[in-house]
Amino acid sequence: MKDTVIKNVLLNGTPSDILISEGRFAKIAAPAQINSENAANVMDGTGKAIIPALYNTHTHAAMTLMRGFADDMALEKWLTEYVWPFEDKLTDSDIRQGSEIAVKEMINSGSVFFNDMYFGIDQTIDIVAKSGMRAAIGVTVMENHSLAVENEKLDFIKNWSDPTGGRIQLVMAPHAVYTVGPAKLRRTAEFARNHGMRLHIHVAETAVEVQNCLKEHGMTPVRYLDSLGFLGPDVIAAHCVYVDREEWDILAGRGVTVSHCPCSNMKISSGRFPYELALSSGCRITLGTDGASSNNNLDLREEMKFAALLAKCVSAKNDGSLENGGNPELLPAVEVFRWASRNGALAFGIDGGEIAEGRVADALLIDLNNVRMRPCHNLISNFVYSADSDCIAATICDGRICGE
Amino acid sequence: MKDTVIKNVLLNGTPSDILISEGRFAKIAAPAQINSENAANVMDGTGKAIIPALYNTHTHAAMTLMRGFADDMALEKWLTEYVWPFEDKLTDSDIRQGSEIAVKEMINSGSVFFNDMYFGIDQTIDIVAKSGMRAAIGVTVMENHSLAVENEKLDFIKNWSDPTGGRIQLVMAPHAVYTVGPAKLRRTAEFARNHGMRLHIHVAETAVEVQNCLKEHGMTPVRYLDSLGFLGPDVIAAHCVYVDREEWDILAGRGVTVSHCPCSNMKISSGRFPYELALSSGCRITLGTDGASSNNNLDLREEMKFAALLAKCVSAKNDGSLENGGNPELLPAVEVFRWASRNGALAFGIDGGEIAEGRVADALLIDLNNVRMRPCHNLISNFVYSADSDCIAATICDGRICGE
Repeated sequence: MKDTVIKNVLLNGTPSDILISEGRFAKIAAPAQINSENAANVMDGTGKAIIPALYNTHTHAAMTLMRGFADDMALEKWLTEYVWPFEDKLTDSDIRQGSEIAVKEMINSGSVFFNDMYFGIDQTIDIVAKSGMRAAIGVTVMENHSLAVENEKLDFIKNWSDPTGGRIQLVMAPHAVYTVGPAKLRRTAEFARNHGMRLHIHVAETAVEVQNCLKEHGMTPVRYLDSLGFLGPDVIAAHCVYVDREEWDILAGRGVTVSHCPCSNMKISSGRFPYELALSSGCRITLGTDGASSNNNLDLREEMKFAALLAKCVSAKNDGSLENGGNPELLPAVEVFRWASRNGALAFGIDGGEIAEGRVADALLIDLNNVRMRPCHNLISNFVYSADSDCIAATICDGRICGE
Repeated sequence: MKDTVIKNVLLNGTPSDILISEGRFAKIAAPAQINSENAANVMDGTGKAIIPALYNTHTHAAMTLMRGFADDMALEKWLTEYVWPFEDKLTDSDIRQGSEIAVKEMINSGSVFFNDMYFGIDQTIDIVAKSGMRAAIGVTVMENHSLAVENEKLDFIKNWSDPTGGRIQLVMAPHAVYTVGPAKLRRTAEFARNHGMRLHIHVAETAVEVQNCLKEHGMTPVRYLDSLGFLGPDVIAAHCVYVDREEWDILAGRGVTVSHCPCSNMKISSGRFPYELALSSGCRITLGTDGASSNNNLDLREEMKFAALLAKCVSAKNDGSLENGGNPELLPAVEVFRWASRNGALAFGIDGGEIAEGRVADALLIDLNNVRMRPCHNLISNFVYSADSDCIAATICDGRICGE
């Protein structure tokens, strides 16, 4: 792979030249200090800033097909009358089209990676490979999958090799504690660990899920998963809206990564994420968009603003009850940006999310002349609270501009 | 003014030709049914939909200058250590620059109107006049303004005439019940009514404001303003976060328009707007962005998504206390869109916010090929929940494309 040089770009407020080699930031220097004569690609960074790119840690990419298809209704009706009947009719070609829209939308809004859980994964993998993005593609596990389906998945995993040489990983994705029984959850975790795969699961998304888990297993979802030996540093737990203080300590202790999805939790009325407990537990928090049918976009930048503002709007007391008005210092811009960038990368073993020599060359070039970035008292604040996709001049993944 | 014809644009799902004459929608017909030979301007609407434009009913435009200047801190510190010292140093040229950024940003994100409250209003008026937008420009009233300042404002109002022949109106803007005393509030309301001007005021933005009003005047802000004869159909009350059921009946009964500003209320931890009470009162609700220093952008489209999602995320019980999880049917996309469009227009006597023959020609052309608008099961849902500024192909105000 040939070198790329970005010339005269603002990095942490300082004009810099940046050499990208073999998909990594090889050298960061003052302007005109890097020889670009032999570079295959020279980019002019004038009027632009470089910041880490975003990592979307929970989505169902192809569900863009259901964007705006069923809004403003209760979860049960949404699932049974709209989502499931729609999904029953999906073809491979539909999945491909849905993934194409999703990938384009994520690149436009600054994501270089997504953690997916859906069907027709060979289609999604193909789209990701062509796009230049990274992805973790979930092999979905449901209790009601037949033996034939299970064997098909096993064959797929056995025969699969990453067509991109490092940008795509397969993960095991048991859907949730209410759709996969205890034996299968255990087996799936063992299988994943034997094959060096991560685990991706919905956890404690709604109060109803917690109540049903208590009824069925005598434990809340996090305690229940821990009792099965499921939790570990290879687990990405999506949502975690209804998790108490002791459970946050369990998650943090096991090294679990949580994917917080504020728009989805708000839109389908799941509830407010317990920011206070999550932050004080020291657990690794990341951000996800969830699928477009409950968001209804895949814009992780927007997700940062929703998270930061929801954290501040109301506050949770120690007993979990809510009070109107909150703490404006909770979840500042720089912290929610770390959730969406560095934390997301680390959760998937990607040494990105920071612009520094040696890190993988995932980055965004931000147009400082865009009206929403002006004035620029604070770049990250502007990106989190003010920007939109139009402020992103380029999304760089693995040293190359995505989508080109 | 010469005619404009928009050809082959989707209106409520139907391909249509639209004739705009004298700043109004003069004729809406099937494609090729309108003769465009004599039109001064013909626009191709192919691949685009036409929807009402947005009306931002509470902002401080020039505060874009303080975008990202002071985030994630308590209101008191924000005001006394950052905002006020910054404002003390502002020149006319600064205000002009701040208003320019604001106007460009609002046009890009689909607003054709804003209701402003700030200083240096001659600068803002000039920028608005050149932009093609509409605005209501507040003459700010504070208790501590000297007689000289008061006389200057009176002179300004007396000598002012709208340079745009109808797009700009002056309104009286007493800042709030805690910065303007009762006598001046009464006098200002009388003055406004004698001069056919509307009134713009901050009301019940924070719990502290309500407590202090109770202490000082023995009444909550809405009751207090009503006791002064201040409330009427010419009043735009911004925020109204802490308003109880009886007060909502007072606001509705007096015909007051409320400007809800979800991002600002969330970001500076004012609290969650009482959607349940506001909706059941029948009061006219509109949307505002507030200033960029507490938002931090002026994107009313984004504001719609925040309002709809905050309404659904948690719910308020009858006693005003909050419960986690809410009602997903509360404030559907089409309703919050009406808040931001038709309701906002009506509040300022603008017969816009609907695409219909006879209405003023304020509208947005939406790019249906933008990836965030695809697929298009529901146009308004896509615009509220998924779009960003990039989906807006043109912002049309008074029959002309803004910013050109």
